[in-house]
Amino acid sequence: MLPLPAVGWSPDQRALRLLDQRVLPEAEVVRDLVVLEDTIDAIRTLAVRGAPAIGVAAAIGLVVALEAAHADAPGAALRPLVDAWGARLVAARPTAVNLPWAVARLQRVAAALPPDAPPRALLEALRGEAEAIRAEDVAMGEAIGTHGLALVPDGARVLTHCNAGALATAGAGTALAPVYAAHARGRRLAVFATETRPLRQGARLTAWELHRAGISVTVLPDGAVAALLASGAVDVVLVGADRIAANGDVANKVGTRGVALAAQAAGVPFIVVAPGSTIDPATPHGDAMPIEHRDADELAPLPAGVGAWNPAFDVTPRALVTGYLTDRGFVEPPFLE
Amino acid sequence: MLPLPAVGWSPDQRALRLLDQRVLPEAEVVRDLVVLEDTIDAIRTLAVRGAPAIGVAAAIGLVVALEAAHADAPGAALRPLVDAWGARLVAARPTAVNLPWAVARLQRVAAALPPDAPPRALLEALRGEAEAIRAEDVAMGEAIGTHGLALVPDGARVLTHCNAGALATAGAGTALAPVYAAHARGRRLAVFATETRPLRQGARLTAWELHRAGISVTVLPDGAVAALLASGAVDVVLVGADRIAANGDVANKVGTRGVALAAQAAGVPFIVVAPGSTIDPATPHGDAMPIEHRDADELAPLPAGVGAWNPAFDVTPRALVTGYLTDRGFVEPPFLE
Repeated sequence: MLPLPAVGWSPDQRALRLLDQRVLPEAEVVRDLVVLEDTIDAIRTLAVRGAPAIGVAAAIGLVVALEAAHADAPGAALRPLVDAWGARLVAARPTAVNLPWAVARLQRVAAALPPDAPPRALLEALRGEAEAIRAEDVAMGEAIGTHGLALVPDGARVLTHCNAGALATAGAGTALAPVYAAHARGRRLAVFATETRPLRQGARLTAWELHRAGISVTVLPDGAVAALLASGAVDVVLVGADRIAANGDVANKVGTRGVALAAQAAGVPFIVVAPGSTIDPATPHGDAMPIEHRDADELAPLPAGVGAWNPAFDVTPRALVTGYLTDRGFVEPPFLE
Repeated sequence: MLPLPAVGWSPDQRALRLLDQRVLPEAEVVRDLVVLEDTIDAIRTLAVRGAPAIGVAAAIGLVVALEAAHADAPGAALRPLVDAWGARLVAARPTAVNLPWAVARLQRVAAALPPDAPPRALLEALRGEAEAIRAEDVAMGEAIGTHGLALVPDGARVLTHCNAGALATAGAGTALAPVYAAHARGRRLAVFATETRPLRQGARLTAWELHRAGISVTVLPDGAVAALLASGAVDVVLVGADRIAANGDVANKVGTRGVALAAQAAGVPFIVVAPGSTIDPATPHGDAMPIEHRDADELAPLPAGVGAWNPAFDVTPRALVTGYLTDRGFVEPPFLE
């Protein structure tokens, strides 16, 4: 019932298999990558994106590259490559938090083996850890989906922003996980997806994956969100999160705050859906969250000499959030660990 | 201190001069049109847009076309052409309210002359009426600008949505008229212009005309409005209106309602700026306003089989509006005429 997996193993288990998100929705191109440079390039150029999917891609990509190196030169000194190649993967996208996290998990597995463990044993252990990272991601989506089923009864009309779907993970996604879970149970749903300028992840990715999975989806310009919500056409808003502060403030793709304001004005529940790992008790509130600003080029074409204000994220205050859904179920701030 | 006029007479007064908005901001192309078909084509294909500008273009375009016909065949039966050509102009863009209004003014002038009035006298009278329509539009912008000066003190930071500027009128525009008036008095201003998807009139037109006039302008994605307002970077929001209902509800370019919600949440004044003629006492409230829906194509590319919800306008309720500025000064609902 899901679209193609965004990231996983190739059927022969010897390659990292990606759905190339650079060419969606015009083309469905699946790439099997083995060489480390190809995986680095895929991460750097956003062939794979979404924090959970990037972590899975790095883990599988490192394992298959090491196995290929060993097959070419058995007995090669693999152990130093785990650190050196891992560091190169981490450098591919410096701000992607799941990237160093996944690589560090593999490096800890390697460090825990005896120094004289044979290369085969090292590769087996690393493969097991990469598969664990992937399977945990799939399980995370399934757990969110199951916990969120009550949000999406038969006939539910859902609004989402940006892409927090299957394309951002190895499984069913985060914000869209309840949608897929309900769809799998035969419920008829209608999803509204914001275009999400400037990179159009809603129009390109969310619309593609839902349509591919057989779920009705309608795209709207970001500016039409308030009108749509006011019209009574939406029952629930489901959005992802990049970080959730201890007090419940939410950093997510820019535009989320405006969706939340419009939902509140219309009396529509606004639910933040994310893995429990997104909650950061060390960040007290939204003002303490760093906001990445991106190039004006993303808004091109602009008149010559005109600049742009183009933040990647915004902060939605706790007061606008109706509920927080994680893989552990619904949770309530304050989040004090 | 204004950018190039969007619409007016050519220097020799024999042609309709337009700034071609189809090619902005990449190119500044001025077109001098005489033949009726060219003016119809310009209106139909949005070379000229904005209700006031369309009215002026139709009036001047009809006069210069009639004069050219008379020069080619003196004594030609001009009077029937005022009606026939006027009807063809009106059909060029059926929903543009200023188009039939301007044509009807010329037709009334023609009808008021004695049947045996010479063609020269008819053409003189029509030219005078067309110039009156143009001059009234310019005066409207100047009056709005003067009445609105207190909104934009030196250093003011203004947010606007879509294009309600010089490019929509023969003069200084509506929402941007106070900005131009303040700029002409040496005040230093900074304007934020929303991109305004899907047709990008903010990024293409508002950004171009302000930059061309020497006013600092920064474009932002529509989704970033709530974050910008929450950041404290904006002192006042100025937006235009397509129609204002008797109770004060405002129909304007889609996205306006979201801007108003974000302004209210941030405690920033939200001012609707429009000619007094935009107020429609016959429309009791926003729910009674028809909303035009446009093609999904405007949101292309979309995944094959995916539709769009693409309203041209939304309704901002009276409760979100801090003030109404017209060419008659500030006004307050109810508008009972």
